[in-house]
Amino acid sequence: MTPQMIKDAAARLRGHARVTPLLNAPLLDAAFGKRIFVKAECLQLTGSFKFRGAWSAVSALPPGVSGVLAYSSGNHGQGVALAAARHGLACVIIMPADAPAIKIANVRAYGAEVVLYDRATANRDALGDRLCAERGLHLIKPFDDAQVIAGQGSVGLELVDQAAEAGITQAQVLVCCGGGGLSAGIATALADRAPGLRVHPCEPVGFDDMARSLASGQRQANTAATGSICDAILTPAPGEMTFPILQRLAGPGLTVKDTEAQRAMALAYTHLRIVLEPGGAVALAAALFRDTSPCVIAIASGGNVDPALFRETLAHYA
Amino acid sequence: MTPQMIKDAAARLRGHARVTPLLNAPLLDAAFGKRIFVKAECLQLTGSFKFRGAWSAVSALPPGVSGVLAYSSGNHGQGVALAAARHGLACVIIMPADAPAIKIANVRAYGAEVVLYDRATANRDALGDRLCAERGLHLIKPFDDAQVIAGQGSVGLELVDQAAEAGITQAQVLVCCGGGGLSAGIATALADRAPGLRVHPCEPVGFDDMARSLASGQRQANTAATGSICDAILTPAPGEMTFPILQRLAGPGLTVKDTEAQRAMALAYTHLRIVLEPGGAVALAAALFRDTSPCVIAIASGGNVDPALFRETLAHYA
Repeated sequence: MTPQMIKDAAARLRGHARVTPLLNAPLLDAAFGKRIFVKAECLQLTGSFKFRGAWSAVSALPPGVSGVLAYSSGNHGQGVALAAARHGLACVIIMPADAPAIKIANVRAYGAEVVLYDRATANRDALGDRLCAERGLHLIKPFDDAQVIAGQGSVGLELVDQAAEAGITQAQVLVCCGGGGLSAGIATALADRAPGLRVHPCEPVGFDDMARSLASGQRQANTAATGSICDAILTPAPGEMTFPILQRLAGPGLTVKDTEAQRAMALAYTHLRIVLEPGGAVALAAALFRDTSPCVIAIASGGNVDPALFRETLAHYA
Repeated sequence: MTPQMIKDAAARLRGHARVTPLLNAPLLDAAFGKRIFVKAECLQLTGSFKFRGAWSAVSALPPGVSGVLAYSSGNHGQGVALAAARHGLACVIIMPADAPAIKIANVRAYGAEVVLYDRATANRDALGDRLCAERGLHLIKPFDDAQVIAGQGSVGLELVDQAAEAGITQAQVLVCCGGGGLSAGIATALADRAPGLRVHPCEPVGFDDMARSLASGQRQANTAATGSICDAILTPAPGEMTFPILQRLAGPGLTVKDTEAQRAMALAYTHLRIVLEPGGAVALAAALFRDTSPCVIAIASGGNVDPALFRETLAHYA
C-alpha cells in the first residue's frame, strides 16, 4: 500500500464519494480550551467512511467478476452494497444477527442480499468461503485489502488540503479504529504529504487491541467479542496489513469509555449538528477527554445509529 | 441589493464562514422517487445561515462603530454575536423570553449581552431604539438590510457551483422563509448565474405570510405571532426589501405542517446524519411532501434544536 495507490483511489472516487467537510465550533473550542476539528465522515454516502474503501476495491476489480461478498457488522456492508450496486454487480453481505437493525435494513435497501449468522456459534468464514465458491463472488475484506486501505486513505488526502486551508501545520489526528484500515490509510497519506499531522488510533476500553499491539510491538487480540456499544469498531485483532503500517507511522493509541463516546455524540449534536454513532464518536471522545495537545483533528467515522440509542444518549448527556 | 453586492459579501466571508456541503442520499431518493439535494446550512458556524448575513453586515460597517444590536428569536442573534465578537465589537441581542433555551445560552456564550422581553406585552422596537441611542449601538436588522441579504446570497453562489458539479441544470430550490432574507439573497444569486434554478419560499401552515403575499401581489401579515414549533421563521410579515425581490424572482411559496417538518427532521437524521431544527427543516419537508418536480434542492437553514424536542421528534417519526 503506497501513497500512489491512495492518489489513484482518490481519482477513482472523484465524483462518486463526497468530499466531507472539516468542521469546528467556537463554543466547543472555548469549552475545552483548545482547537478541535472534526472531519465529518458521517456525512459520507452510506453514512460512514467505509464507502470510500468499498468503492476503491470494487472499482479496481478485474473485468469478468460477477459479484462481491463482504462480512460486516454494518458500515462496511453498506459501503460495499452501494458500491456494488453502482457498478452493476451482485452483492452478498454476511452480517451478525445482532447488528443494529438500521444497518441491516440499509444494506438490504442498497440492493444486497443479507445472510445473517450467530456470532457465538456460527463459522462466519466457512459460510463466506462456501458462498464465494458456489456463486463465483469476490471477497472484499473490511481492512486487510490494499485497495480498501487506499480508499480510506483518501480521507487523509482531503485532510491535507483542509488542514492547510485552516492554517494547521501541527496536530494530533485521532482516528476511530477497528481493524485499522482507516488509520493506516490516513497515516500513509499524511506521512507523505503532511508530516506535522500524526495519527493516533482510538478504541473503546476493553477493545484496545491496536493500542496494546502498538505498545508491545506485537499484534494482540481482544479477549471479548461484544460488550461495547461501539459496534462498528469491535474487531478481534489488528489487521495483518494495517498493523505494520501503523507501527511505522502512528500511535500511541488512545482508549475511551462508552459513556465518553456518548458524551462526544451529545457534544457533536449540540455544537456541530451532526449525528454520530458510538463507534464513530470514539476519536472525538479521545480528542475531548484524552488528548492534551493544543490542536486536534478527530475523524468522525460514521453516523448510523438506531434512534432509540441516540435519544437515550441525548437524554443523559445533552 | 445587486448580484455584485453578493459577490462582494462572499469575498468578505471567505475564510470566516464555512462552505457548506450539498448532501444527498441514495435511499432517500429511492424512497421518494426523485433526486433530493440538501444544502446543509445547519453545519454553518453558529448552526445556521444567519452567520453569513451577520458577518456581511458587521464587516461592512463604517469605521468608528463601537457596537451592534440585534433583535432575534435566536439564530440571527447567534450569528451577530459571533460576528461582532470576531470584529472586537460590543453586542446586545434582544430576545423573546420564550426563545429556545439553547439559543439564549449560545448567544451569551458568544459573548453578547442578552436582553429578554415578553412577546405579548413589551414594545421590542422601543426597547431597542433606547439601547441604541444610549450606548451608540448600530442596529443589524435580520432581513431588511441589503448587506444581510447579500451575505445570505452567498449560499446561492455556492449552490451555483455545487449544482453544476452535480450536473443539475434545472431544479426547484426550496428555502425556509421567515422575513425572506435567505430566499431573496439566493434568488438574486441564482437569477444572475443559474436561471434554471428557481427559488420557492417555504413556511409553516398559519405563518405563510410570504406565500400569501406572493399570490396576492401585496405584503400580507400573519394573524398569529406564535403557535408553531418552527420558531426560527415566525416573522409577522414579509420584509419591505425582500418582498419586491421575491415577487420578481421567486415563488410560488409552499407551506408545510409542523408534523411534516418533524418528519423531515427524522429523515435528515436517518439518511443525511445532520441535525435540523423545525424551522430549518421546513424546506426539506416541502421538498418531500409538496414539491412534485424530479429534482429538488432544499436549503436546510439551521440546526439549533433543544434536545428534548429532537428526542420527541425521533420517538414519533424516526
